Amino acid sequence: MTDFDDQRTLAEKLDAADPLAGFRGQFVIDDPSLIYMDGNSLGRLPTRTKNVLANVVDRQWGNRLIQSWQDAWFDAPQRVGAKIAALVGASPDEVIVSDSTSINLFKTAMAALAMKPERNKIVTDEFNFPSDIYILQGCCDLLKDGHQIELIRSKDSIEMDTESISLYLDDNTALLTLSQVVFKSGYLYDVRRITEMAHAKGALVLWDLSHSVGSVPIHLNDWGVDFAIGCTYKYLNGGPGAPAFLYVRRDLLDRVQSPIWGWFGDANPFSFSLDYTPSDQINRFLVGTPGVLSLLAMEPGVDLILEAGIDRLREKSVQQTSYLIDLFDTFLAPLGFTLGTPKQPEHRGSHVSIRHPEGYRIARVMIEEQKVIPDFREPDNIRLGIAPMYTRFIDLWVAVDRIRRVMQDRRFLQYSSERQMVT
Amino acid sequence: MTDFDDQRTLAEKLDAADPLAGFRGQFVIDDPSLIYMDGNSLGRLPTRTKNVLANVVDRQWGNRLIQSWQDAWFDAPQRVGAKIAALVGASPDEVIVSDSTSINLFKTAMAALAMKPERNKIVTDEFNFPSDIYILQGCCDLLKDGHQIELIRSKDSIEMDTESISLYLDDNTALLTLSQVVFKSGYLYDVRRITEMAHAKGALVLWDLSHSVGSVPIHLNDWGVDFAIGCTYKYLNGGPGAPAFLYVRRDLLDRVQSPIWGWFGDANPFSFSLDYTPSDQINRFLVGTPGVLSLLAMEPGVDLILEAGIDRLREKSVQQTSYLIDLFDTFLAPLGFTLGTPKQPEHRGSHVSIRHPEGYRIARVMIEEQKVIPDFREPDNIRLGIAPMYTRFIDLWVAVDRIRRVMQDRRFLQYSSERQMVT
Repeated sequence: MTDFDDQRTLAEKLDAADPLAGFRGQFVIDDPSLIYMDGNSLGRLPTRTKNVLANVVDRQWGNRLIQSWQDAWFDAPQRVGAKIAALVGASPDEVIVSDSTSINLFKTAMAALAMKPERNKIVTDEFNFPSDIYILQGCCDLLKDGHQIELIRSKDSIEMDTESISLYLDDNTALLTLSQVVFKSGYLYDVRRITEMAHAKGALVLWDLSHSVGSVPIHLNDWGVDFAIGCTYKYLNGGPGAPAFLYVRRDLLDRVQSPIWGWFGDANPFSFSLDYTPSDQINRFLVGTPGVLSLLAMEPGVDLILEAGIDRLREKSVQQTSYLIDLFDTFLAPLGFTLGTPKQPEHRGSHVSIRHPEGYRIARVMIEEQKVIPDFREPDNIRLGIAPMYTRFIDLWVAVDRIRRVMQDRRFLQYSSERQMVT
Repeated sequence: MTDFDDQRTLAEKLDAADPLAGFRGQFVIDDPSLIYMDGNSLGRLPTRTKNVLANVVDRQWGNRLIQSWQDAWFDAPQRVGAKIAALVGASPDEVIVSDSTSINLFKTAMAALAMKPERNKIVTDEFNFPSDIYILQGCCDLLKDGHQIELIRSKDSIEMDTESISLYLDDNTALLTLSQVVFKSGYLYDVRRITEMAHAKGALVLWDLSHSVGSVPIHLNDWGVDFAIGCTYKYLNGGPGAPAFLYVRRDLLDRVQSPIWGWFGDANPFSFSLDYTPSDQINRFLVGTPGVLSLLAMEPGVDLILEAGIDRLREKSVQQTSYLIDLFDTFLAPLGFTLGTPKQPEHRGSHVSIRHPEGYRIARVMIEEQKVIPDFREPDNIRLGIAPMYTRFIDLWVAVDRIRRVMQDRRFLQYSSERQMVT
């Protein structure tokens, strides 16, 4: 038996011992030979979502019509928000579902900046998700009073020097905002430690949980976080473009205001008063009518994560990223790949980036010829996402096996390097 | 045969002659005895939407997973936007689907105000939809440079003195924004005339088409409109909270900027560059990842309106509101109701408001005991929405018949006036 075959046996043993193995059966998996390694970008479809959506469409919309606002829809942003609160260590009344992650960042960043009118520096890092940086650039442009972004620079996104963050924070810093898990490398920040650093300098803190929620334990209250936002279509399996969430610490709520004043944020939306009176609840960060189908289709994915339990999911995720990195070291590093993800489990989320100068073309062949679906992030990152809800250890072994084949037959040389994939 | 019975016969004749009658069969109607008069708030479920959504969920999300972004999702905001463009008299590249109506108003109003930095007055009317007024109040608060809203006041919302609008417009007016159809009364503004008035004073114009699109012909290009927004879950039958649309006149596009800079608005969202470069297309008004399920579930409703043809729909709508107002005059006015909608067809959209001091309780009994579903708008408006796609003349007769019964048995006196209905 070769070394690689031994690893296959190990994967099978680990799967057999996996207490979460049963959850895979809760997802639609039409083609078991497809190895889906992109649950960190778009989570799989939970089987029960189909029934939920059929009920929302046929019974609620089709049959009960407008009455469903009263029956089931009007309180959905708070109700589902309360479930997400349980996943991020917040009180049920501190989280609401609304809009997109980018719009929620706009709302919370603007709210935070308004709380610190005498300061005009925003600190983030150059590895933050670009849309987050764009939103912040837009806030600076809009405020027209000298707000500037200072980017924390690091040698790379694998070994972030978190202690150096304090060097960027000063008496002029209004807001520090970072992604808990860095989208390219999977680097996992120490939220508690960095939040303390910012508070020590009198700055507010806003965490983007998009790349961590559902795969990493989060304790916003314990960590003293001021604001947070996040996405529900990755590890929460909420569906393509499912609405995002937004957290504001309870004691800040009556001192913050959304920059966008819509009727769903009003204390009494159906009074149709001519003057906006913000709700005294987290609802004040709502704007317009929520997209009900996308919102309610997202709920079963959140329920499943709660059922599996975030600590168990994290334990499996660490086991799986560790197993994959072991395979990487022995079987992929010799083929010209470098590891784009921290080696220490406490510093990484739930995906493993493997880097190669031909990464784009290799990713294309993986998808189009080998039925392994990762995603690609410029310039050379192939991201292998692990969703412990449904990823098996054997999937990781098969993925590596197929990547080895791609490198062996070198068919990627027949593909164009011109970028065509949009995700 | 009594007069009222004659009217029933007339309704049956009109239905028999209706060239659009067949479209009713394209909608899910579980209970033919339910008279649904709230399609102006939430349109009915098109039968084909069920198949579309099943395909999006089962095949696109469940089976093709992340690859569906490339296959079907990434261009959906533009593709569906182009269809809506055909409904509002715009070029296909001038309309995009995104976010909610309120957020689109925020984006376009802020964009317009930035184009007129030397002016700081916004003009709208006191009968505009409250969320629109709230958004504008939020814009003024955010801009902190003296922007103010001036409300056009009228005796009532039935007979608007449109000529007096010019009195509110001056050299300091940056923006005039109104709803084409007024939500309480159904008053239909002369968009061309009012747009000309505003342009004559050097102001920009932004029309909210939420209460008109799909029931009234709209010619944004011919009318010279600068900006428009609108909702898709009313007459377009797009589903609860379906995403909204946004129009910018082509020649303004390279001079306007969204206040919210997200990655979907970037010229190349997947380059992951650290600097935002707005798309040179209408995409620059996109922000975050669109809610795909809600967006694609909306498309069949738009297709159906295009198939029926807006001119035929308008013709039927005028016939139906006229028929209903005839019934009102003879049979409801004597019972203490007053008409809350203009008598002249050219001044009204597709709903008829009937007002009564006990309107709230009457509406409750209509819904809970008589299976007629209108909606109620403070303080005394019962809105009877007519959706010519599926409303029959006989439905109008039955609705009036049942309202007469409500007034006869006076069971509404047994209900509380305390407001409980949220829609």
